[in-house]
Amino acid sequence: MSQRLRHLTTLENLPRETIERLLDRANSMREATAHGTRKLDLLGGRTVLNLFFEPSTRTRTSFELAARRLGADVINFDIGFSSTAKGEELFDTLHTLEAMHLDTIIVRHKESGTPDSLVKHAMSGVSVVNAGDGNRAHPTQGLLDALTIRNHHPDFRKLRIVICGDVRHSRVARSDVHAFTALGAKDVRLVGPSSLLPAEGELEGVSLYEDFDQAIEGAHAVIMLRLQKERMATTDLPDEAAYFERFGLDTQRLARAAKGCLVMHPGPINRGIEIATDVADGAQSRILEQVGNGVFVRMAVLAEVMGR
Amino acid sequence: MSQRLRHLTTLENLPRETIERLLDRANSMREATAHGTRKLDLLGGRTVLNLFFEPSTRTRTSFELAARRLGADVINFDIGFSSTAKGEELFDTLHTLEAMHLDTIIVRHKESGTPDSLVKHAMSGVSVVNAGDGNRAHPTQGLLDALTIRNHHPDFRKLRIVICGDVRHSRVARSDVHAFTALGAKDVRLVGPSSLLPAEGELEGVSLYEDFDQAIEGAHAVIMLRLQKERMATTDLPDEAAYFERFGLDTQRLARAAKGCLVMHPGPINRGIEIATDVADGAQSRILEQVGNGVFVRMAVLAEVMGR
Amino acid sequence: MSQRLRHLTTLENLPRETIERLLDRANSMREATAHGTRKLDLLGGRTVLNLFFEPSTRTRTSFELAARRLGADVINFDIGFSSTAKGEELFDTLHTLEAMHLDTIIVRHKESGTPDSLVKHAMSGVSVVNAGDGNRAHPTQGLLDALTIRNHHPDFRKLRIVICGDVRHSRVARSDVHAFTALGAKDVRLVGPSSLLPAEGELEGVSLYEDFDQAIEGAHAVIMLRLQKERMATTDLPDEAAYFERFGLDTQRLARAAKGCLVMHPGPINRGIEIATDVADGAQSRILEQVGNGVFVRMAVLAEVMGR
Repeated sequence: MSQRLRHLTTLENLPRETIERLLDRANSMREATAHGTRKLDLLGGRTVLNLFFEPSTRTRTSFELAARRLGADVINFDIGFSSTAKGEELFDTLHTLEAMHLDTIIVRHKESGTPDSLVKHAMSGVSVVNAGDGNRAHPTQGLLDALTIRNHHPDFRKLRIVICGDVRHSRVARSDVHAFTALGAKDVRLVGPSSLLPAEGELEGVSLYEDFDQAIEGAHAVIMLRLQKERMATTDLPDEAAYFERFGLDTQRLARAAKGCLVMHPGPINRGIEIATDVADGAQSRILEQVGNGVFVRMAVLAEVMGR
Repeated sequence: MSQRLRHLTTLENLPRETIERLLDRANSMREATAHGTRKLDLLGGRTVLNLFFEPSTRTRTSFELAARRLGADVINFDIGFSSTAKGEELFDTLHTLEAMHLDTIIVRHKESGTPDSLVKHAMSGVSVVNAGDGNRAHPTQGLLDALTIRNHHPDFRKLRIVICGDVRHSRVARSDVHAFTALGAKDVRLVGPSSLLPAEGELEGVSLYEDFDQAIEGAHAVIMLRLQKERMATTDLPDEAAYFERFGLDTQRLARAAKGCLVMHPGPINRGIEIATDVADGAQSRILEQVGNGVFVRMAVLAEVMGR
Repeated sequence: MSQRLRHLTTLENLPRETIERLLDRANSMREATAHGTRKLDLLGGRTVLNLFFEPSTRTRTSFELAARRLGADVINFDIGFSSTAKGEELFDTLHTLEAMHLDTIIVRHKESGTPDSLVKHAMSGVSVVNAGDGNRAHPTQGLLDALTIRNHHPDFRKLRIVICGDVRHSRVARSDVHAFTALGAKDVRLVGPSSLLPAEGELEGVSLYEDFDQAIEGAHAVIMLRLQKERMATTDLPDEAAYFERFGLDTQRLARAAKGCLVMHPGPINRGIEIATDVADGAQSRILEQVGNGVFVRMAVLAEVMGR
């Protein structure tokens, strides 16, 4: 059996067995809470703290629900998002929280690498879970996306998966790629305007496309990324309509994918910019399934890092 | 027995039996938590989420206490009050929350009708409870006001009740009227400056007054509404003193009411604007009784909509 | 046995026995939660409310953890720190909270004396715990500082304790002095620039110094206060370097103290202004021990005021 994780800061270099174990555990969490009581008592007496330096109500709420459904107490440490806590100031906060005997710190920070810095500077047995750092990693999103696909297509070795949009600045895309390649995905395609693609060779095991129609051909899953509107200015696309024309997902384009291709999005969606309303709300959309899986994946991760 | 409510968005058109059942249940909640432990475990394992698009610490806290005293978990979904979530954006938030398997959403929104839109767009078994929408309804306030009166005067058919102030913009007044008329109140009087009264005929079963001295004559309960100071500019009253002179409640005016007339206010009060300090703090004041009843009514509502 | 406290607003005039009892209880709380489950159920069914009119994430979190580890529910009543709630408005808030049947209100307010006003105006059995008022008192900080020292030096009658920095505006310093003198400390020295020292005679049982090198001579514990940078302008010290030169704690100065002198700070620390990094992180630093003791002291105080 692969070693238990004490922290989860990235999916990069995680063994396939570890990822599989977390996904299996997430499915067990779903089953265990489906009937009767929705709470397990795995983490009774434990305390989980949300340390969010960027606002994210959805992700914070998903973690909070996951922790509470396992019986843990949850503290929201509201540091004020204007704070640019770095270096000693950040580590003093970490040590203060450790001295209060917290079990797990869930951290979101706009600087890539912050969760690993916390792990490195931690003095006690606290666990660190990354809820998104810079454009680097969002490991629970990568896991929930992998889970959503795996529940429909158990064998990744047959799959073509397309990730479309502002891949360059997306921590979701990076964690997705790490999960999908670890699980043996046959063909992972990143597509977007050239200025929004990662550098050639930055990510292993993927191919880059600038033509969405070409990339989506025969895909089993397509993940649309949220476009930060200010990024559009860095492309040669003059407006939202032009962006949607080339990189939006509508029914016509979806028809080029494999039959039953899963439509995914980390949310919140920009209707009419990266995805058409009828596709977002259509029969192939797995967007809400992703949200549900997010809670189960986070339950699995919290149980794993706290050793239960 | 009248049908169980799955949602509570308004008291309008609710059968008398349903209102009576909720009030009876609220009194039972008081008794059940009066001695020894103050918590019941009716809602163990359930999750209630506060979705407040307008700030209201008092109402949010009252709901939070009610939910916790029934053993539920409470999540505060802090959306930031600058957000004007509407339409698709609002429904995407709703569906995201449903996908996380919440049991009840408590919503406050400045647009009238938002809670009903949520009910209409809900895809799962989530319950929606209105904590105030625009100037339309604040049903738990209507129930707690009815409970406060009923605990002193069980038979509404004998009662004259006066609601004074900015009735036009008041969701409290509308829900009060719906509760009192459903319970058979003999005489419900709305009084205020003409620009702050509802349109003639908008509300059934009430009479409109511009003379407070006349309206309060023989009243068994008088409900003073909070005046938003910016509203005063729309009246012909030049300042707070002039407003208080005509529409404030002082001991002299209260003496025109029936003996022991209940003095009520949804809070927070503006002393010296709509109510004199000695009346607010006097023997006939039921203002704090209203606050206490608020928690019990919300316990009853939460237990009702979640089917326990 | 000294009388049980119903409230804790200040340590001034508290009998030595009461302080000793709270410190003993804090140590028991540590032992009771050290193994296996970290939660006790002393306060199950009780509700504690944080009423913070000044932001303080650290102190609020410490109280929240303390309350939850005793099984209480915790409500954060977010009043918005722009509010300058005073007088009737403040008491109306108090009475509203009492009417909701809260057990304990933890209050922080920038006006000295606010917690005592709440005690005076409370109508029900609610307990009030001061989490810091103006420059007057921060009693749980005083207790946790006393506990930290006592766990190393049980007999205060032999101790020289130095408090250095902006003593004049420090509620921490005042509560420290009250705790240490009640416990019989032999020699309590306050040191800082003359404009930041309290008036001669304001505090009993202490001596004032303007020369840190002289004051620290032979000290068993030195408590460095956080300098509000805007206060520096009121001194004759032109900049941070000059302040640190005269009133900062570095290894050289620490060498003048008794061997093993405890280094303490209420946090968060300003490295290089009031304390050198190597001292803050050094072997004699008790700063994180203080943080840990803070939770245990607050558990003891909450159990005391709620009679468990």
